[in-house]
Amino acid sequence: MRFAAFIAAILICSALIAQPAPTPYITPHAPLLGAAWYPEQWPESRWDADLQLMQDAHLNVVRVGEFAWSTEEPSEGHYNFDWLSRAIALAAKHHIAVVIGTPTDAPPAWLTSKYPDTLGTNADGRLRQHGTRRQFSYSSPHYREFCRQIVTELAKRFGHNPNVIGWQIDNEYTDESFDPATRRQFQQFLKAKYKTLDNLNRHWTTAYWSQTYTAWDQIPMENTGGNPGLLLDHKHFVTATWRSFQQSQIDALRPYVAPTQFITTNIGGLGWSDNWDHYRITQPLNLAAWDEYVGEGHLQVAKEAMMNDFVRGWKRQNFWLMETEPGSVNWAPINNTLDRGETRALAWQAVDHGADAVLYWQWRSALNGQEQYHGAIVGPDGTPLPIYTEIQQLGADFVAASPALAGTTPKSDVALITTYDSRWAIDFQPHTKLYEQQQILLDFYRPLESIAQSVDIVEATTNLAQYKLVVAPSLNVIPQSLADNLLTYVRAGGRLILGPRSGMKDQYNALNTQRQPGPLAAALGGRVEQFYALESPIPVGNGTASIWAEQLTVTNPATKVDLRYGKSNGWLDNQPAMITRSVGKGSITYLGTIPDPALMQSIMQSATASANIQPAFGPIPTGVEVCRRVAPDHTVYILINHGKATQQISLPSTMHEVFTNKDAATITLAPQGVAVLTTKAK
Amino acid sequence: MRFAAFIAAILICSALIAQPAPTPYITPHAPLLGAAWYPEQWPESRWDADLQLMQDAHLNVVRVGEFAWSTEEPSEGHYNFDWLSRAIALAAKHHIAVVIGTPTDAPPAWLTSKYPDTLGTNADGRLRQHGTRRQFSYSSPHYREFCRQIVTELAKRFGHNPNVIGWQIDNEYTDESFDPATRRQFQQFLKAKYKTLDNLNRHWTTAYWSQTYTAWDQIPMENTGGNPGLLLDHKHFVTATWRSFQQSQIDALRPYVAPTQFITTNIGGLGWSDNWDHYRITQPLNLAAWDEYVGEGHLQVAKEAMMNDFVRGWKRQNFWLMETEPGSVNWAPINNTLDRGETRALAWQAVDHGADAVLYWQWRSALNGQEQYHGAIVGPDGTPLPIYTEIQQLGADFVAASPALAGTTPKSDVALITTYDSRWAIDFQPHTKLYEQQQILLDFYRPLESIAQSVDIVEATTNLAQYKLVVAPSLNVIPQSLADNLLTYVRAGGRLILGPRSGMKDQYNALNTQRQPGPLAAALGGRVEQFYALESPIPVGNGTASIWAEQLTVTNPATKVDLRYGKSNGWLDNQPAMITRSVGKGSITYLGTIPDPALMQSIMQSATASANIQPAFGPIPTGVEVCRRVAPDHTVYILINHGKATQQISLPSTMHEVFTNKDAATITLAPQGVAVLTTKAK
Amino acid sequence: MRFAAFIAAILICSALIAQPAPTPYITPHAPLLGAAWYPEQWPESRWDADLQLMQDAHLNVVRVGEFAWSTEEPSEGHYNFDWLSRAIALAAKHHIAVVIGTPTDAPPAWLTSKYPDTLGTNADGRLRQHGTRRQFSYSSPHYREFCRQIVTELAKRFGHNPNVIGWQIDNEYTDESFDPATRRQFQQFLKAKYKTLDNLNRHWTTAYWSQTYTAWDQIPMENTGGNPGLLLDHKHFVTATWRSFQQSQIDALRPYVAPTQFITTNIGGLGWSDNWDHYRITQPLNLAAWDEYVGEGHLQVAKEAMMNDFVRGWKRQNFWLMETEPGSVNWAPINNTLDRGETRALAWQAVDHGADAVLYWQWRSALNGQEQYHGAIVGPDGTPLPIYTEIQQLGADFVAASPALAGTTPKSDVALITTYDSRWAIDFQPHTKLYEQQQILLDFYRPLESIAQSVDIVEATTNLAQYKLVVAPSLNVIPQSLADNLLTYVRAGGRLILGPRSGMKDQYNALNTQRQPGPLAAALGGRVEQFYALESPIPVGNGTASIWAEQLTVTNPATKVDLRYGKSNGWLDNQPAMITRSVGKGSITYLGTIPDPALMQSIMQSATASANIQPAFGPIPTGVEVCRRVAPDHTVYILINHGKATQQISLPSTMHEVFTNKDAATITLAPQGVAVLTTKAK
Repeated sequence: MRFAAFIAAILICSALIAQPAPTPYITPHAPLLGAAWYPEQWPESRWDADLQLMQDAHLNVVRVGEFAWSTEEPSEGHYNFDWLSRAIALAAKHHIAVVIGTPTDAPPAWLTSKYPDTLGTNADGRLRQHGTRRQFSYSSPHYREFCRQIVTELAKRFGHNPNVIGWQIDNEYTDESFDPATRRQFQQFLKAKYKTLDNLNRHWTTAYWSQTYTAWDQIPMENTGGNPGLLLDHKHFVTATWRSFQQSQIDALRPYVAPTQFITTNIGGLGWSDNWDHYRITQPLNLAAWDEYVGEGHLQVAKEAMMNDFVRGWKRQNFWLMETEPGSVNWAPINNTLDRGETRALAWQAVDHGADAVLYWQWRSALNGQEQYHGAIVGPDGTPLPIYTEIQQLGADFVAASPALAGTTPKSDVALITTYDSRWAIDFQPHTKLYEQQQILLDFYRPLESIAQSVDIVEATTNLAQYKLVVAPSLNVIPQSLADNLLTYVRAGGRLILGPRSGMKDQYNALNTQRQPGPLAAALGGRVEQFYALESPIPVGNGTASIWAEQLTVTNPATKVDLRYGKSNGWLDNQPAMITRSVGKGSITYLGTIPDPALMQSIMQSATASANIQPAFGPIPTGVEVCRRVAPDHTVYILINHGKATQQISLPSTMHEVFTNKDAATITLAPQGVAVLTTKAK
Repeated sequence: MRFAAFIAAILICSALIAQPAPTPYITPHAPLLGAAWYPEQWPESRWDADLQLMQDAHLNVVRVGEFAWSTEEPSEGHYNFDWLSRAIALAAKHHIAVVIGTPTDAPPAWLTSKYPDTLGTNADGRLRQHGTRRQFSYSSPHYREFCRQIVTELAKRFGHNPNVIGWQIDNEYTDESFDPATRRQFQQFLKAKYKTLDNLNRHWTTAYWSQTYTAWDQIPMENTGGNPGLLLDHKHFVTATWRSFQQSQIDALRPYVAPTQFITTNIGGLGWSDNWDHYRITQPLNLAAWDEYVGEGHLQVAKEAMMNDFVRGWKRQNFWLMETEPGSVNWAPINNTLDRGETRALAWQAVDHGADAVLYWQWRSALNGQEQYHGAIVGPDGTPLPIYTEIQQLGADFVAASPALAGTTPKSDVALITTYDSRWAIDFQPHTKLYEQQQILLDFYRPLESIAQSVDIVEATTNLAQYKLVVAPSLNVIPQSLADNLLTYVRAGGRLILGPRSGMKDQYNALNTQRQPGPLAAALGGRVEQFYALESPIPVGNGTASIWAEQLTVTNPATKVDLRYGKSNGWLDNQPAMITRSVGKGSITYLGTIPDPALMQSIMQSATASANIQPAFGPIPTGVEVCRRVAPDHTVYILINHGKATQQISLPSTMHEVFTNKDAATITLAPQGVAVLTTKAK
Repeated sequence: MRFAAFIAAILICSALIAQPAPTPYITPHAPLLGAAWYPEQWPESRWDADLQLMQDAHLNVVRVGEFAWSTEEPSEGHYNFDWLSRAIALAAKHHIAVVIGTPTDAPPAWLTSKYPDTLGTNADGRLRQHGTRRQFSYSSPHYREFCRQIVTELAKRFGHNPNVIGWQIDNEYTDESFDPATRRQFQQFLKAKYKTLDNLNRHWTTAYWSQTYTAWDQIPMENTGGNPGLLLDHKHFVTATWRSFQQSQIDALRPYVAPTQFITTNIGGLGWSDNWDHYRITQPLNLAAWDEYVGEGHLQVAKEAMMNDFVRGWKRQNFWLMETEPGSVNWAPINNTLDRGETRALAWQAVDHGADAVLYWQWRSALNGQEQYHGAIVGPDGTPLPIYTEIQQLGADFVAASPALAGTTPKSDVALITTYDSRWAIDFQPHTKLYEQQQILLDFYRPLESIAQSVDIVEATTNLAQYKLVVAPSLNVIPQSLADNLLTYVRAGGRLILGPRSGMKDQYNALNTQRQPGPLAAALGGRVEQFYALESPIPVGNGTASIWAEQLTVTNPATKVDLRYGKSNGWLDNQPAMITRSVGKGSITYLGTIPDPALMQSIMQSATASANIQPAFGPIPTGVEVCRRVAPDHTVYILINHGKATQQISLPSTMHEVFTNKDAATITLAPQGVAVLTTKAK
C-alpha cells in the first residue's frame, strides 16, 4: 500500500521530534457544564425536548458525533451530516455550544467487513471484530485514510460553524494491535531510533539469553515478559503510534477549522493509566481533557484531587473534564450510586484543581446497546431522573461563579515530578506487588497538599525553576540529560527530594552502572548499597517504613544522615534511610523508603518550612478542601466540605462569597456545601 | 452440503413455532429406583452379578447405552446392537426396566477424524477434539445426519422391546459452537425473525457505537460483551439450535418406537443454569428429567426443594431425577461424601417435590476414564460399597410407598414465576455482582414454602388462573404480551407481587420507554424513579434491605405505600419501597428491594393471608420438611426430618403411615427419618 | 526429514530401556562454592576484576556458557569459542574451576527465524517466539541436530581443558510442545508401548465415553482434562522426550570429553515439581544437580531439608546445588531478601543433606534483560553488594571444612518412598484441593527427621534392603511388580507403612480390581472399604485426622487394628483408621488418613522404636538442625542454629570442631551459627 511509507515516516518523526506547542485554549465563561448527547439515537422530534431540559438545568455545552460514523457515512463515501447540522443549530437556539467528536473509535460494519486489514489484533493473536468498539488497528494506514476522509468532511462542514467550539479526536485511545504489519512498523521504529543492530543489541544487552538480533525483522513485539529494553521501546512505539494516529486527524482538521475551535481528545483510564505517555499525546492539542469515573464506592478526595492536578500538569494549563458519571457507572463489580450531593462535590473539586468544563456521560441511555445501565440524567422515558435536580443546582452554581472563575488557574510553589519512563520501568518489574505507583504518589501528595494547599504534578524533564520544592517519588529512570535538568534546578536554589527506586535505570531501561541514584549519586554524596522489598513494616526514625527500603551510605563528608532504620532484617539495622547534601544554592535529599503517614508528614513539614512555602489559604478544618485559582487581578478560593458535619470557617481576611454575593469574614459550610470566595470582586 | 437448507429450516421453525405438547408420561409404580449401567465397559460374564446386586437392592430401572457409540457403531455404517439386546434381556430377567440413552454426546474417533466438520469450535476459536466428550458441533447438519442414522437404527431395533420403557436423547446439552457455519445459521435465524435489517437495527439500537448492519453477514456471534439485543437473540438461537438438534432425534425415534415408550433428555446444570430455555427444550418431550448433584458440602434443603419445584414447572408435571450422586461426585474442589442417611433424604425430597424416579450415577466406575473417582454403588472389585445398604433401604422404601404414590403429584395455590428472557437480561448485565438470581429466587421461595408448604415455579407467560398468589422475583423483561397475561390474571382476582428490576426491558432486551414496571406501570399506579445497587444493607420498614433498592413513586391516588426506606444515601431516604394497587378483582404489588428474611417472611405472611392460602399440612417442627402429593382420590404427605434431633409430630388428623402400615395421630421421626402418610389407604 | 525415524527410535528406546548407570562423580575438595558467571555480557577488560573478587570470597567454581549460543555461534555454522577459552584460562589463574553449560535453552534469533519448525507450540496452540527463552520444541529432530552440532564443537574444544571439571546440559527442562509433529511422536511412543490398539483401548477403558481408537493417528495429546491413562502415558512420553533430548547431548559430549569431566543438568522447580520423572532424567548423568530458590518469605527448614533429601535420592548419591539465590529472587509476588545469616544457613543446610557444591545465581546482573532485579553478589557498578561479605564467610567455612567433608555422604536407616506414577495419578485427580502432595510428604518427613535425624527419600521400585523402616505416604499406583518389590522387602524383615490412597491404581492409571492397597491387600489382611475427602478434621484415636480418611476393614484374623476414627460422618464412626499385619520377618501397616502432627509423631515414634532406629546424633535443642555425613573412616556432624536465640549443646561425645579447630564436649551456637564436628580428625 502506498500510504505505508508515508505513515511510517510520520510515525517515526512524531515520536522523535517534539512539535511546537499549539495555542492554549482559554475556555470562555468557564466553568462550563454539559453532557454527551447522541441525537442520532433518537427521533429528531425529540431533540427539542432534550435541549430544553438541558437549558433548564443550565447546561451550556454538549459533545456530539462521537461513535456516529455509521450514521454519518452509512455507506462507503456517502456522507450524511445534515442531521448533525440541524442538531447543532437547535442546540444553538438553546444557547448550548457544541463539541464534535470524530467518530473513529467505532468504524461501521461496512468498512471493517469490506476491509478486514483495518481490524486490530489482540495480544493473543485473535483478530478483533465488529460488535463492540475499538476494533480497528491503530497503526493501519488504510484505516487512517478512512479516518482522514471523514474527519476532513466533518471539518469542511462544521469548521466554521459558530456554535461549534471545539473538536474531540476519537475516544480514550486504548487498544494496541499485535498484527504482523504493526510489528514491522515497530521494527522500523527501532531502526530509526538505533540505526544499527549493534547499537540496539548493546543497549538491550541481548547477549543475555542469546537474544542477539542479526536482522531487524527478527525482533518480536511482546506486551509482557520480554526484555525490559524492548518493553520500554514498545511503550514509546505505542505512544508514537497513537500520536501519529491523532496527528493525522489534527492534520485533517486544522486546515478547515477556525483557529478559535480547539482540538482535544478525551483521555480515559481510572487513576494513572500507563498505556502511553500522556505528556506526549497531549502536547499537540490545544487542550487536555480527561474522563473521571469513580466506579464502585465513593469520592476519594485526596486521590481525585491528585488526579486532577496530574491532568493539569500534562500541558501545565487548565483542562476539561470531558466525561464524568451522573451518579453511577455500569462496569464496576457493584455499581453503587454516589450519595446525594457527592456528584456536585466531585464537579466542584475538578474545577478547584483546574477544570474549565464538566460534561456528564451521558444525557440519556440508548434504548439498547452495552451501556443501558450506565448513569444518565434523563430516564428511558425522557423525563428527568432524580440526579437532574442536583446537576441543575450545579449549573446554577457555575453560572454564578463564572465571572470570578473564568481566566483563573491553580498555582503552586511545590511540584511532584514524574516521567512515564519511570512509571513503565517499575510497572514492568515491580519487584513487589505492594509497590502500587499511584498509591505511592499519593503517599507523597497527601502531606504536601495538606501543608501547601496546592501542588503541581509535572514532567521531570521540564523547566522546574518556578518551584521552591520538587519531590520525585519514584524516578526510576534517570539518564544523564534528566540528571542535568535536576542539577540545574538544584544549583539555582531548588530543593529536590528523591524517593525510593530513583536513578536505577538509563533511558534504555538498562541498569545505570553507578549505584542509585545513578548520575545524581556524585552530587548527592551518597548511594544506595542495596534495595529491599519489605514483607511487613520495619522501624525507621521514630516511625515505620513499608513496601521498600534502601540501605543508603554517605560517600561525601558534606552529606548528612537525616533518618536511620531500626532493627529489622540485619542488613538495614541502623543504616541511613534518608540523606541530604547541599548543592549550589539548593539541596538534594534521597529518601530510600516509604515512611508511615505521620513520619512522611513530618518530613514534608521540614522540607516545606526550609523552602519557605506558605499555605495557599490558611488553617482549615479537617474534611474541608480548599483550592486556589488565580488570575492577574484577583484570587479565587473554593471551599468544599467533604465531611458529614457542618463546619464554621474563619477566613484569613474578609472575602467576597459568590453564591450569597456578600462579603464575609467567616462562613458556614453544610455537609457537601461549597463556597466560592474572591479576594476582589470582579 | 444439501442438508443445510433443510436443517436451517427446521431450526428456524422450531424456534418460532410451539409444537403441540406430546402425551405426558405417567410413570407406573412410581417412584422407581435405578442407576446408570454401562455393560459395554465390562465382560458379559459379569453382567448377571451386577443385575443381581441391583435386584437385591430393589432397583427396578437402568439407563444404558449413553456414550456407547463406539461400541454400537465400531466403524462407519456397521452397527452392533446384539450386546445391548442381550443386556436388556438379562435386565428383564431381574425385573429391571431399561431406558436407552442415545449415544450422541460422544461421537467415536473414526467419525470426527474422518469428518472434522462435525467438530465444534469453542468461544476462543479453537476446534474441539476427540478425547473427552461434547466435542461435536450442535448445529452441524452433517453431524445430525450421523445422529439420525444411529438413532433410527436403535429405534428400529428396540422401539418395541417390552423391557424398554423410554429413551433419553443425548446428555446434558451443554456446549455451543462458534464456527463460521454456525454463525451463518445465526444470521439466517435473525433474518427469519427480523425480516429487514432496518428492523433489527432499530430494535438493537445499532446507531449506538456505530454498530448499524448493512448486510446480514456482518453480524457477529459473540458470547459476551456484545449488544444486549444480540446477546438475547443468541440465547434464543442456542435454544432453537438445541431444540432442533433434539427434534431431529425425536423425529428419528417416534416413527419406530411404541407410543408407550417415553422420550426425554437429562438436563444438567447445578441449580438454575442459564445456558438455554428449559421450558422450550422440554416442551416436545413426554417427560422432563434432570441431574441433581450436591457437589461440595451437604444437602441444602430449601435450595434443592426449590430446584425440584422449578424442574416440575418446566412441563407442569412430574419428572425424573435421571442422575444423582451415590454420596459424592468427582468435580468439586473438595469432593466430600454426604453423611450417612443424607443420600436417602435427598432422594425422598426429590420425590416429595414431584420426582417419579431416582437413578444413581453410576452403578460402578469404569476402570479407566475421567470419572474414576465419582461416587458409585459398587467398588472396582465388584462388591458393594458402604452406600449400597443405604440405597437398598431406599429401594425397600420406594417399593412400600409405590401403591400410595403412583399417580400423585404436588399441587399448590402459590406460584413463583420466571422467564428465561428475564434471567438472561439480568445475567448479561447484573449491575452488581451481589445480584445472584438463584439466591434471590430462594429469598422469595423460602418464606412462601414455609407458609404454604407447597410452591409451584412456572413460566410467567402461561395461564396463571389456578393460583391465588403469584410472585415474580425479578421479571426484568416484560413486553406488552406478558403484561397482558399478568393483567388478565390480576383482573380476574389474582394477586401479583412484582420484585425488583421488574419491567425494565422489552422482548428485544431494549429499555422499555416507560419507567419500570414498563407496560404494568399504569395498572400499578406507580413507577420506579431510579434503581440503586447497594454496597451494604440499608433500613427499610422495620428491617433492612440489601443488594438492590428502587425508589418508587405513586402516580395514582388509589395506590398505597406499603413500605418506606429509612435514611441511607440521600436519594432513598423516606421514599416508598413497596406499593400496591387494587386492579379489577385482584391487585398488583411492586416490591423494589430484597428485604431481610424476617421482613420478607412478614410480607409474604400478609400476602398469603389476604389471598386466603392455607398450609398444605399444618404446623411442623423446624428442620422437618413436609410435602403433599395428591391424586383424585387421596392425598399423600411425606415428612423428612433433616435435623439432627428426633422429632415428635402431631398430625392434623389420623393418617395411615406406609412404612409401619399403621394409622397414627402422632409420629416420631429420627434424624433423617422419613414418613409417608396417606389420608386414605389405597 | 531423515532424522525423524532415528530420533523417534532413540526416544522410544530411552523410555523403555534403563541404561547402565554412569560413573558417579565424587566432587574433590567438596563442598565447592561458586557462581554463575556470564563473561559474554561484559567487556573482556572487566573479567579479571570479577575473578579477583570471586577469589577473594573463596569461590572456586564458576558455571559459564549457559545461554551464550548467540555469542558462540553468531551466524549459522560460524563458531566463536575463543572468548570462552580466554575466560576459562583467566579463571584458572584465579584457581577457579569451570563448568560449561550447553547453550541450548536459548537458541539464537537467526536459528529460529530461519527454521521456525524448531520452535515449540504452547498448550493453547500458539507458536512460541524469540525474545525470552525455552522457545524451542523439545521433540524437534531438526532442533536437536543444531544442538548436537554446537555441543560437539564445544566438547571438541574444551573436553580436555584441565580447568573444565564438568558439563551442564541445557537448563531446567521445562516446556513441552503441542505441535502436530510432537503428537505424531506421542502416537509412535504409544504404538511402541501397546503394540495394538486393542491393548491400548483395554488399558485405557476407551469404551467409556466412546473414546475407542481405531487408528493410532486419532489419539490426541492433551495436557489436562483427558483420560487418566492417556495423561499418565503423556507424562511418560514427556519424560522420554526430555531424556532423549538430553541423551543426544550426552552422546555429543561423551566421545570428546575426558572421563573425569562430569555431565549433569540443573533441575528447576520449586519444591517437588511433577513435570517429568526426575529419577529417569538423572539416571544417565554422572551427577544430579538442582536449583534451590526460596522465593517470597524465608527458609522453611523442614521443607528445604526434605527437598535436599529428595534430590539426593534421585541417584542415591551426593548432588550439587547448581543455582541458589544470593538473598533474593525477582519472580515472587514480594521479592523480599533473606535475613542476614540466612543465606549462609541455607547453603550449609544443603551441604548437610548431601550437596557437594553450592553455586549462586548470579554473580552480577546483566545491565538489561529480564532478570535485572534478581539477587546478585556484585552490583551494577561492579562493586560488592552487602551479601558479598556473608558469602565470603561461607567461602572461608567451606575451605575450612573441606578436609573433613570431602568424600562423606548422608546415611539413614529410614526411607520415605515415592514414585512419579503415584504423584501424577493423584495430581491428575486430586479429588480434594487440600491434598497437596509435597505437604503430605512433609507431614510424614517431619516426625521421622526429628526422631532419626536422617531420612532418605528414594524411589519405591529400588532395592530397599538397607532400611529398617520404609514409609510410603501416598503410593497411589501399585502394579504387581511394585507390590512384589515391597513384599520382598517386608518378608526379609522390613517394616512398611503405607499412607492413604495407596494401591488404588495399576501402571496404566486404571483402577486396581482389588480394593486398596490392591496387590498388597492380601498380605495386609485388610482393605479400604471407601475413601472420604474431608471438609474439616474429624476425631481419630486421641487426635484428629484431616484431608482424607479411608474406612478400613480387617479381612485376616492376624491383622490388628492400631487406630479407629471417632464419630464423624456416620460412615467412618468407630471404623479402623490404621491396621497392621506381620508378614514374614517384617510387617505391613496401612494408615488411611493424615493424622495431626502430635499423633503422627507418636505413630512414627512407635514405628521407629519397633524398628530399633537410633538418632544419628542425639538430643538437640528445638530450632537446631543436626545432620550426619559419613565416610568409611570418620563421621561428620553439622549443626545449624536456625533459631533466634543462642544455644548451648552437649555433644554425645567429645568431638573435633572444625572452625575453631578444637576438641569440645559442648558447643555454643549463636543464631544462624554453624558448627562442623568430626568424630575423628582427618
